[in-house]
Amino acid sequence: MELVKELVKEGGKILLAVLDGLGGLPVKDGRTELELAKTPNLDALAKNSALGMHLPVDYGITPGSGPGHLALFGYDPVKYRIGRGVLEALGLGLEVDERSVAVRANYATVKYENGKPVVVDRRAGRLPTEENRRITRRLAEEIKEIDGVKVELAPGMEHRLAVVFRFPEPLEEGSDAVTDTDPQATGLSPLEPRPLKPQAERVARVAVKFLERVAELLKNEPKANFMLLRGFAQKPKLEPFSERYGLKAVCVAVYPMYRGLARLVGMETVEPKEPTLKGQIETLKELWDRYEFFFLHYKKTDSYGEDGNYEGKVKAIEEFDAHLPELLELKPAVLAVTGDHATPSVLKSHSWHPVPVLVHSPFVLGGYEAFNERTCLKGELGTFPGKKLMQLLLAHALRLKKFGA
Amino acid sequence: MELVKELVKEGGKILLAVLDGLGGLPVKDGRTELELAKTPNLDALAKNSALGMHLPVDYGITPGSGPGHLALFGYDPVKYRIGRGVLEALGLGLEVDERSVAVRANYATVKYENGKPVVVDRRAGRLPTEENRRITRRLAEEIKEIDGVKVELAPGMEHRLAVVFRFPEPLEEGSDAVTDTDPQATGLSPLEPRPLKPQAERVARVAVKFLERVAELLKNEPKANFMLLRGFAQKPKLEPFSERYGLKAVCVAVYPMYRGLARLVGMETVEPKEPTLKGQIETLKELWDRYEFFFLHYKKTDSYGEDGNYEGKVKAIEEFDAHLPELLELKPAVLAVTGDHATPSVLKSHSWHPVPVLVHSPFVLGGYEAFNERTCLKGELGTFPGKKLMQLLLAHALRLKKFGA
Repeated sequence: MELVKELVKEGGKILLAVLDGLGGLPVKDGRTELELAKTPNLDALAKNSALGMHLPVDYGITPGSGPGHLALFGYDPVKYRIGRGVLEALGLGLEVDERSVAVRANYATVKYENGKPVVVDRRAGRLPTEENRRITRRLAEEIKEIDGVKVELAPGMEHRLAVVFRFPEPLEEGSDAVTDTDPQATGLSPLEPRPLKPQAERVARVAVKFLERVAELLKNEPKANFMLLRGFAQKPKLEPFSERYGLKAVCVAVYPMYRGLARLVGMETVEPKEPTLKGQIETLKELWDRYEFFFLHYKKTDSYGEDGNYEGKVKAIEEFDAHLPELLELKPAVLAVTGDHATPSVLKSHSWHPVPVLVHSPFVLGGYEAFNERTCLKGELGTFPGKKLMQLLLAHALRLKKFGA
Repeated sequence: MELVKELVKEGGKILLAVLDGLGGLPVKDGRTELELAKTPNLDALAKNSALGMHLPVDYGITPGSGPGHLALFGYDPVKYRIGRGVLEALGLGLEVDERSVAVRANYATVKYENGKPVVVDRRAGRLPTEENRRITRRLAEEIKEIDGVKVELAPGMEHRLAVVFRFPEPLEEGSDAVTDTDPQATGLSPLEPRPLKPQAERVARVAVKFLERVAELLKNEPKANFMLLRGFAQKPKLEPFSERYGLKAVCVAVYPMYRGLARLVGMETVEPKEPTLKGQIETLKELWDRYEFFFLHYKKTDSYGEDGNYEGKVKAIEEFDAHLPELLELKPAVLAVTGDHATPSVLKSHSWHPVPVLVHSPFVLGGYEAFNERTCLKGELGTFPGKKLMQLLLAHALRLKKFGA
């Protein structure tokens, strides 16, 4: 892993387009979503590209969005774990830095027996999202900090929200070793957040005080009169992308989670003016002169895959294909198209299958007829670990020196 | 790595033909040098061979000659590093053993201010090579040893030379931790060689005395009146090839560097009577009964690739092909044809691309139409790490026992 860092040098611009959940399985006439989609631009590009498949984590392992993206960015997703709380907070648009502990939270209903809360509904009757927003806004106004620790809240869907405790200074590793408060069953009292390591004591203390204030503020709510905390987590210690690869990098993503994942590795992030692929590409154009690495995240392929809507996924692929010429007009030295994992419509979920990769550059064998799972399987890049993709992109952008004389 | 050593047994002879820089990229009509070359003998051999691609170091990593050959010999090129001084010395025909520290040197021009040298030209006006030879010969005659340490010199091109300090006994690791003397700019005084570790002190002392004697001997030279030293290096500690694989091995190479690399792993080496492929094959024939492993190094493919002369590279491949029947007449149990790295003419340099491999043996699937990048990509060996090639060759020569019962 250190080797690549020894070898980085200046070179061309790299554009990495991630079609979330790109890979698929046969859905009709034995053909996959990518095979069914009419993709004249991607197919033409395949003639002058290297094709292959990447395996995001390991054989048979289905990655979440966190591990999938860490691998694409060149970090070992088994070594660097992104905790649940962190992912939830990033997804809801909160910042998670080295001073933060992030937590998944949800509203619950309790009744009081001898002054002690007992859980009646662990999800507060699946609170309407609008109610959640109202209550979370109120809590955020009332609880801005606890003992000098900033508290940030962001509402999610239904009963879910994210909490970030932001300390004045960077936290030691292990500060997130705090137990969940969800008793996992009704009729039981919520648990106290308990530290499992000495460096987690301060975090647990803040959490206890936070929950006391929440209980006080919510006591008159009919349903959401309590909060449960799970998945206390810090961000993993990662060498910043810019130091590792000598690249000034920016992410253009519509969804907060992907901007958050990019920020975890130290990329800058920009929210496109419009939440569409067109809007993203316009933003890319504006940023083009100021960066060397561009991470474009396209979500629709995954969303339709998760819904089991293969026609939607096919259309999403076709929409991306229609915009491909605009990406090529930017004239990146290397344009890569891939996914962070497969999301086959037949599985309605992420899957363990390898993910098609296209690397467009002058320094390839090329000659492929189309871009899909089957052509990629026969491609010159073979099936390779996802975390090696960055090395390949740097090489094709002539950004790596020769190793040894 | 230890596993293979546990399993070695007697078996057939192995001939490894390395066409330096063999792999390429499309240069004309979408075809690579290897695809353009008329290679009836290699193509016929592919019918009865296993094909594949090897990756010398890692995805996207461009290997120098040192790492490329270490991988072919079965040593991890990231773990075992060959320092600059060692490679330069080997390339100029000097021996580098466990008693040696090798250094890259170059002649420079200095002027003296208050008796102190100040660099005027770091390359002595790019001294004609003939001048270099004359001066180096004179220094070699005058400085044969320093405090019991033998000094060996070899002139290179223009202002370059190699220096080997050979001690009476093997050196501890870290003895080469001595700083460069090149101040990297004119107008500055050359630096003193300084030890960075205790075990390097003696080497630094010898270097200081050596430079004093050089300055004295060269003081009346008009241009080359000083010498700068860079890249002090010892050979890496490698388990000898013969112990690792139970093979009596010999290298037949025209260029000193490749014989030097073979000697680093303990192979014997022979300079062919004539510096041609024909001469090399005659030498091979003479040696045939006395060895079990033969490393034949063919340089021209790389030289033309580096020049960007794809027609030259095509012809060099065709020349090798024409001699292939003579290699087959030797009846090796295994004949392997590959490169130490790719040198695509379009890049005019080594590259990171995987390298075609042909393993001729009775124990293969075979059935291929031709030997080139595209057929090798679809070959039965897949794309595998270069350092695993030796295991494959041993296996095909029936030189590896069953592992476990």
